[in-house]
Amino acid sequence: MNFCSSCAQPVTWQVPEGDSRPRHVCVSCGTVHYQNPKMVVGTIPVWGDQVLLCRRAINPRHGFWTLPAGFMENGESTAQAGARETLEEANARIELLDLYTLYSIVQVDQVHFYYRARLLDLDFSPGVESLEVALFHEQDIPWDTLAFRTVSVTLKHFFEDRARGHFPLHTGVLPPLR
Amino acid sequence: MNFCSSCAQPVTWQVPEGDSRPRHVCVSCGTVHYQNPKMVVGTIPVWGDQVLLCRRAINPRHGFWTLPAGFMENGESTAQAGARETLEEANARIELLDLYTLYSIVQVDQVHFYYRARLLDLDFSPGVESLEVALFHEQDIPWDTLAFRTVSVTLKHFFEDRARGHFPLHTGVLPPLR
Repeated sequence: MNFCSSCAQPVTWQVPEGDSRPRHVCVSCGTVHYQNPKMVVGTIPVWGDQVLLCRRAINPRHGFWTLPAGFMENGESTAQAGARETLEEANARIELLDLYTLYSIVQVDQVHFYYRARLLDLDFSPGVESLEVALFHEQDIPWDTLAFRTVSVTLKHFFEDRARGHFPLHTGVLPPLR
Repeated sequence: MNFCSSCAQPVTWQVPEGDSRPRHVCVSCGTVHYQNPKMVVGTIPVWGDQVLLCRRAINPRHGFWTLPAGFMENGESTAQAGARETLEEANARIELLDLYTLYSIVQVDQVHFYYRARLLDLDFSPGVESLEVALFHEQDIPWDTLAFRTVSVTLKHFFEDRARGHFPLHTGVLPPLR
């Protein structure tokens, strides 16, 4: 951020009066430009004992496999965001179940949510952001070509919990890669 | 948003190529300025059978009572945000317990999180954003002067669940006021 989005004057990086941390501040019009973490919401769409994954047609991680997920938008709930992303990326209709994983990724200022979900039919297909969409049995999950760590963590929890027969919420922090 | 924060030229409100919804777009440098919902994180600090509340010294809802909570900042986890806000608003040290309520408030583009928490000592006091901080028994909760609906909803769940002896996660959407 170089300029004030209200008045187009240059911004400075300083601690606003009464605040405790530096922000982008416009010294011309006084606007403080707060920046906050973003939410990424996705689902684990299940059909029988198979899980739906999408192969990404966009960067980052073009060509890698992911659960359907994306940035939550203004004007929707977390649950709506998960269902929308599943429809957009996989043209898949789901019954949304409980929130299942919630991980903070501090180094990129994101919080990732995954809901369990039940696919309502097999009429899915790649959305514009996917190269292909497919169902995987546990033994066929492409662990080495998954796009994001929260996808791996969520799938690992899912298969462990499925073996035990219950699905508690998992929350935590994804540590930096090194 | 009137001007591009990268190059200071005026922005337009249009659907970027390959996107499905309008954004603030700079036609000069091509930057798309995404706006996404924000997270508010707080705690329910408990001491014995009492709950800690803060009376707000700032707007909105100056003078009303709230659980300690505030906007999640870049560079922290949801759990750290809850503990930080509790320290800032009430100078209170806590042991953070499980995530307890998670509500989307679609009309203001926010998601509110509350964690259960155990106060570690009685050495609390008003932070700069609080007029006073106090412990309340259930029968003394100032229901008519609570600052926010997610505070009321969280406290109602809390006292109901405490009577039952277990505290499941509650998630949902806060409907518009009318």
